[in-house]
Amino acid sequence: MSKTIEFYWDLGSTNSYFALHLIKPIAARHGARVVPRPFNLGHVFRTHAYVLMDEPKAKIANRITDLHRWAKRHQLPFKMPTRFPIKTSPALRGALAMRRFGKEWEFLERIFAAYWERDDASVAEFEGLRPAAEALGVDVDRFLALAESEEIRQELIAETDGGLARGVFGAPSFVVGNEIFWGKDRMDFIDEELARQGQR
Amino acid sequence: MSKTIEFYWDLGSTNSYFALHLIKPIAARHGARVVPRPFNLGHVFRTHAYVLMDEPKAKIANRITDLHRWAKRHQLPFKMPTRFPIKTSPALRGALAMRRFGKEWEFLERIFAAYWERDDASVAEFEGLRPAAEALGVDVDRFLALAESEEIRQELIAETDGGLARGVFGAPSFVVGNEIFWGKDRMDFIDEELARQGQR
Repeated sequence: MSKTIEFYWDLGSTNSYFALHLIKPIAARHGARVVPRPFNLGHVFRTHAYVLMDEPKAKIANRITDLHRWAKRHQLPFKMPTRFPIKTSPALRGALAMRRFGKEWEFLERIFAAYWERDDASVAEFEGLRPAAEALGVDVDRFLALAESEEIRQELIAETDGGLARGVFGAPSFVVGNEIFWGKDRMDFIDEELARQGQR
Repeated sequence: MSKTIEFYWDLGSTNSYFALHLIKPIAARHGARVVPRPFNLGHVFRTHAYVLMDEPKAKIANRITDLHRWAKRHQLPFKMPTRFPIKTSPALRGALAMRRFGKEWEFLERIFAAYWERDDASVAEFEGLRPAAEALGVDVDRFLALAESEEIRQELIAETDGGLARGVFGAPSFVVGNEIFWGKDRMDFIDEELARQGQR
């Protein structure tokens, strides 16, 4: 059985953008499959009664600097979006709809590139998912109807609650076996865990 | 002129324990000097009106798991202390007093080992700093009188405010030239920055 890396993501999470790219070489090295798991952070924060704090200015400034260091190192055309934060449930639901078409990962790459590389916040709306669906060659109207359906809405709730139930609390998170890795900066630990699995 | 790495630390910061150890090989590789800067997080959090949040249980559990992953990887005998958090201003002031004896770094290693490896919270009090001072062969009574003096108290305030003024907001932080690196997990960026300095 091939190895599996579950990837909990939200389009609104800057670090999910980086994680989406950084997990690829690791998955390839271990012949592991990456299974995307939409994780609705808005819902998670409400569950945890978490309110985005007023953080000190120096901390926010340092975070932006840090993100650009990562972008430079990994040669990613990252750009902090003008409109931030955005509503992400349409994109999360869109990914679940796209799962039915077998193109979930490709969809993720497109919507993350739109928002985090091209400053295109249209992906905050269902209609804004249209270009990605078109580019992937699926029946766009069927795709959109599915994304907006009650069925997919419930599926997103179930996915998010499932993550919470197993101990996932933020995005990006990766689950390998019973281990949960939080953040874009734990890739080497994931790499080690996959190597360990190979030795069993 | 030799390269300098300023290291902002607080004894109560778990990640400062790791950072204290992880910076050493990097400093050695670049022939850089590590200059410790006591940073009173209690004061910083008051300044930022930050109150330690009630974090979700899963997040706290994951943080502990992550710390043990780091300890294992770097073969450090880390142990989460029974008494946590502790008052750290005596240790921070002790370090400044020890600076006058030229043994600040050795003092840091001892108090961090006491608290983070041997579960010894006595270092939360001035009297508890006695064994470290004795082991370092300094005049213990002079050392303690200095650590408790108004002069050193003011010096700690000045050091902490100096850090805040230049944009440091947490511990561990490292300053190399004009760059601030926050956290135990940015060592490779520090390494790169020092390498870049060498090319100028």
